[in-house]
Amino acid sequence: MTLKIPVVRNILEANERLAEDNRRIFREAGLLVINLMSGPGAGKTSLLERTIEALQPEIRIGVIEGDIQSSYDAERISQKGVQVVQLNTGGACHLDSNMIKSSLDALDLDTLDLLVVENVGNLVCPAEFNVGEDMKAMILSVPEGDDKPLKYPLMFQESRALLINKIDLLPYVNCDVGKIRERALQLNANLEIFEISCRTGEGLDGWADWLRQQVSAREAGGDGAET
Amino acid sequence: MTLKIPVVRNILEANERLAEDNRRIFREAGLLVINLMSGPGAGKTSLLERTIEALQPEIRIGVIEGDIQSSYDAERISQKGVQVVQLNTGGACHLDSNMIKSSLDALDLDTLDLLVVENVGNLVCPAEFNVGEDMKAMILSVPEGDDKPLKYPLMFQESRALLINKIDLLPYVNCDVGKIRERALQLNANLEIFEISCRTGEGLDGWADWLRQQVSAREAGGDGAET
Repeated sequence: MTLKIPVVRNILEANERLAEDNRRIFREAGLLVINLMSGPGAGKTSLLERTIEALQPEIRIGVIEGDIQSSYDAERISQKGVQVVQLNTGGACHLDSNMIKSSLDALDLDTLDLLVVENVGNLVCPAEFNVGEDMKAMILSVPEGDDKPLKYPLMFQESRALLINKIDLLPYVNCDVGKIRERALQLNANLEIFEISCRTGEGLDGWADWLRQQVSAREAGGDGAET
Repeated sequence: MTLKIPVVRNILEANERLAEDNRRIFREAGLLVINLMSGPGAGKTSLLERTIEALQPEIRIGVIEGDIQSSYDAERISQKGVQVVQLNTGGACHLDSNMIKSSLDALDLDTLDLLVVENVGNLVCPAEFNVGEDMKAMILSVPEGDDKPLKYPLMFQESRALLINKIDLLPYVNCDVGKIRERALQLNANLEIFEISCRTGEGLDGWADWLRQQVSAREAGGDGAET
């Protein structure tokens, strides 16, 4: 363990410096940037598809798709007619600022209002690496269980919004949404929580409305989106 | 990125040396050791509960519970009357050999036939770090979707057994078990696949029988469990 701890600290510091560079680029372009995180298969790409359907063309959306390998998610998203870049980490379990920076040339940032970075499916490390985003949002799907805030607290602490997805499965799984809410809010009292089903569409209007407000606050200038 | 790559290599090499030490200890104790991996909430602890119910007292089972923090899983498992140690990684997204080594004093290995290491919920990094196990086994739950072998191939390549869990949810989710099988076997033709539901108990007999065979092969001496 003595081998690892200082190394991780250096990586995090180097990442933070590059995150600041990205943040400056995003601010200049007047963009709202969301870092979207979850475990594998919780519904990040499905949420993106639904969000694009709800907000386009009113809000112009760009997507950076992070995956260890493959480009399936970027292909899915590109069918929605938005700008999308696939970023392959080549084994790494999270995106970092350098990867994001290297992908920005492939996007025309000035024509976008909202950029969503879909992180690698992982409830742990993505929460440790800022990429220059305005806010992190996370998805927890109900089949994963209501104990996840207790076991993966950092992501709940770091996120501005929590989407509780697949609520159409509640009759068939052992999961108490009230417990998720209570445990998540104990970690982060400012967390905005949405109960949704990307499959049935339930609850997505509330999420889309909230996103519209965040984009407007950013366009009105300053850090409005953060408050 | 130039910062990170050599560091990761050193960590993996250091880990591999300690894995060999653990392997020697496990061999001397005549133990079969399984490293159980999955994404968050796929059902590792539930599978362990069901496995203990099926095999005890015929096979004496010990468990090392890996979590970033908390001891909820160890508490659940201890109610089944087996030896259990909770290992907290303090932030790390996977277990490594050094952590496992440090937890072995808390177990009486000579009184066990089977040791299961429940890794941190993560489909990525746990597959990179051997801990001295005889084999890795992984769970994919059907709500996670049938594209996971395409997106997280290493874990499928490294595993000896794949448990497709939560098959009771198949009527309610978009997931084709045939595609999971096909994609997983393309990555690893020797993968032993079990379709199970820890909730209903379906398919667990086949898994328990297979485990019995693996334990017998180990007790008969040598690397039988690996073949």
